[in-house]
Amino acid sequence: MLNNEITERFKIKHPIIQAPMAGGVTTSELVAEVSNNGGLGMIGAGYMTPIQIRKQIRELKNLISNPFGINLFVPKEIDVTLDNIKVANQLLDRIREKVHLPQKDNNIEIPAFNNMYETFMEQIKVVIEENVPICSFTFGIPPEKVISELKKSDIILMGTATTVREAVENEKAGMDIVIVQGSEAGGHRGSFSNTNNEGLVGSISLIPQVVDNISIPVVAAGGIMDGRGLMAAICLGAKGVQMGTAFLTCMESGAHKVHKDAVINATEEDTVLTRSFSGKLARAITNNFIMSIENNEQLLPDFPVQNKLTQDIRKAAATNSDKEFMSLWSGQSPRLAKQQTVKMLINNIMSQAETIKTNM
Amino acid sequence: MLNNEITERFKIKHPIIQAPMAGGVTTSELVAEVSNNGGLGMIGAGYMTPIQIRKQIRELKNLISNPFGINLFVPKEIDVTLDNIKVANQLLDRIREKVHLPQKDNNIEIPAFNNMYETFMEQIKVVIEENVPICSFTFGIPPEKVISELKKSDIILMGTATTVREAVENEKAGMDIVIVQGSEAGGHRGSFSNTNNEGLVGSISLIPQVVDNISIPVVAAGGIMDGRGLMAAICLGAKGVQMGTAFLTCMESGAHKVHKDAVINATEEDTVLTRSFSGKLARAITNNFIMSIENNEQLLPDFPVQNKLTQDIRKAAATNSDKEFMSLWSGQSPRLAKQQTVKMLINNIMSQAETIKTNM
Repeated sequence: MLNNEITERFKIKHPIIQAPMAGGVTTSELVAEVSNNGGLGMIGAGYMTPIQIRKQIRELKNLISNPFGINLFVPKEIDVTLDNIKVANQLLDRIREKVHLPQKDNNIEIPAFNNMYETFMEQIKVVIEENVPICSFTFGIPPEKVISELKKSDIILMGTATTVREAVENEKAGMDIVIVQGSEAGGHRGSFSNTNNEGLVGSISLIPQVVDNISIPVVAAGGIMDGRGLMAAICLGAKGVQMGTAFLTCMESGAHKVHKDAVINATEEDTVLTRSFSGKLARAITNNFIMSIENNEQLLPDFPVQNKLTQDIRKAAATNSDKEFMSLWSGQSPRLAKQQTVKMLINNIMSQAETIKTNM
Repeated sequence: MLNNEITERFKIKHPIIQAPMAGGVTTSELVAEVSNNGGLGMIGAGYMTPIQIRKQIRELKNLISNPFGINLFVPKEIDVTLDNIKVANQLLDRIREKVHLPQKDNNIEIPAFNNMYETFMEQIKVVIEENVPICSFTFGIPPEKVISELKKSDIILMGTATTVREAVENEKAGMDIVIVQGSEAGGHRGSFSNTNNEGLVGSISLIPQVVDNISIPVVAAGGIMDGRGLMAAICLGAKGVQMGTAFLTCMESGAHKVHKDAVINATEEDTVLTRSFSGKLARAITNNFIMSIENNEQLLPDFPVQNKLTQDIRKAAATNSDKEFMSLWSGQSPRLAKQQTVKMLINNIMSQAETIKTNM
């Protein structure tokens, strides 16, 4: 069950995908080490320009000959007014004061988001030109035209779903594989439909219900950190796992030292769901930033506008190594996080999985 | 791994515990059928009087010779004022109107809850006198004196936990086994400490983190409905599973037909967490009752006061088979629920588990 259509299709040894965490975590060193050790390394390219994407793909091709993948964010129409931005900036100004940044409320402008679709198409162009073998998507399903172009180039496509309905939509759109994100997952929720109850379903419930309703292979994501999680996902009907937090604290990851330490010292009670950093629901370790916005989340503009507005704060906090104002993304299993190399992590997962299999 | 210290200790064939759902679901027929088919049947006695408890235990002893268990609610001090009750009744009066019940707001009284501890001690006395082999607790850990008395009678004790901290407290208090309830679970949350973030952790995260921090056996609860869930729980380090929703829709369960149908027709998106019915956080299929209280949940008195206040409404709704005003408890896996006999359910779970084991 650990060698299956996923490992065959991806030409990888182990059914382990490193989650494409955006924002500097997926260094070429991290991606290369994952792919070199039998998993699938993924570039988190959601926030990257087409030029940056091409540069990292070429860097990776110099480092490894194994397959790797890339993740892009599917843009959607945004609806934001100057008033929305003013209100959000007023809330954020209280935080700016705490991190010694200049106020913004009298200096409002709507950031340029109208070219998001064009940027996305350029990102797709680079993926095709550079022959990246695997491409995954979050926050939506790309237009038919994009899917058929990628397919013409034999690129394997993975979509993201947080409910059965979203998984079915991914299959219908022609995705080859669907990543099913349980409520345990760290970072942004991949939801893209108007789900009831924000689509927060635990993996032990969500995975089998999805598996029963689609024919394409399922990859389980959310809360999986070791061989126990991998084997559980396989028992539930998934063909592989996508792991974020477990790779985030690895030596090779580009996450800030303060972020890695925060995850390693956290417990399962310390993460919360918040829209404060980006306008989109995400799971992070709670801190001052989240708590100061908490009661006003409904006033924030949507992703990616709020993400843009908080950029100066997050940057300043990172420069000052101030964990109270950084986005400390984490899944619900931080007690299982370790500071170790990717090689050690993957070896530990696979030997634990083998032990479970043997004792079954 | 399916025959382990849990099956040995309980003298049962399969590591499957039927959740002690309170409020009439755990008929003697249900409990007996579970125990007769190799699982552990449990009486949900939280709301029962000592006399009712003794009656059902004797009824069960006439039906089966296999072991069965019982669950009790650990009472805690309640702090409620006439004003709290008045406010809650005003909110509930809008609902009473819809179900054609008389208004209550001018007819307030504090229900008698001061004898809760005495009732609990009488329940314990019956459990000891009737030699019930297994006793589990929710909503707290019983006082030391109660634990040592039950242990003197060789009764196996199970506590309930929703976080690592709560599991550790259960172990320290002398519980033999701990039931670990993931965020997927239907009905009331078993939380009893002031957890951050309401202790809503998905099972795939929670189980291994608990297992790493205690030495007593762990039983996984929440979202488990079939052999896939059982095998996943075992991989995560649990020794058995406790299943509620899966037994609720069985032919032998005492749940209202409307409740069973609601679960069978629901999807994973349809359940929400609510305090509206009882004052304690619980997972149910969303309906008019929940939605009408939603924005005022912070005004409601604690469990069990709110539970008492809503009794007339739930009773009237059940009499009228009106699903919009009943408490339709359900976990997050309703797509996996079936109308079947207990025998079929347990056979299906075990044969699916065997298939997974064989193909591993």
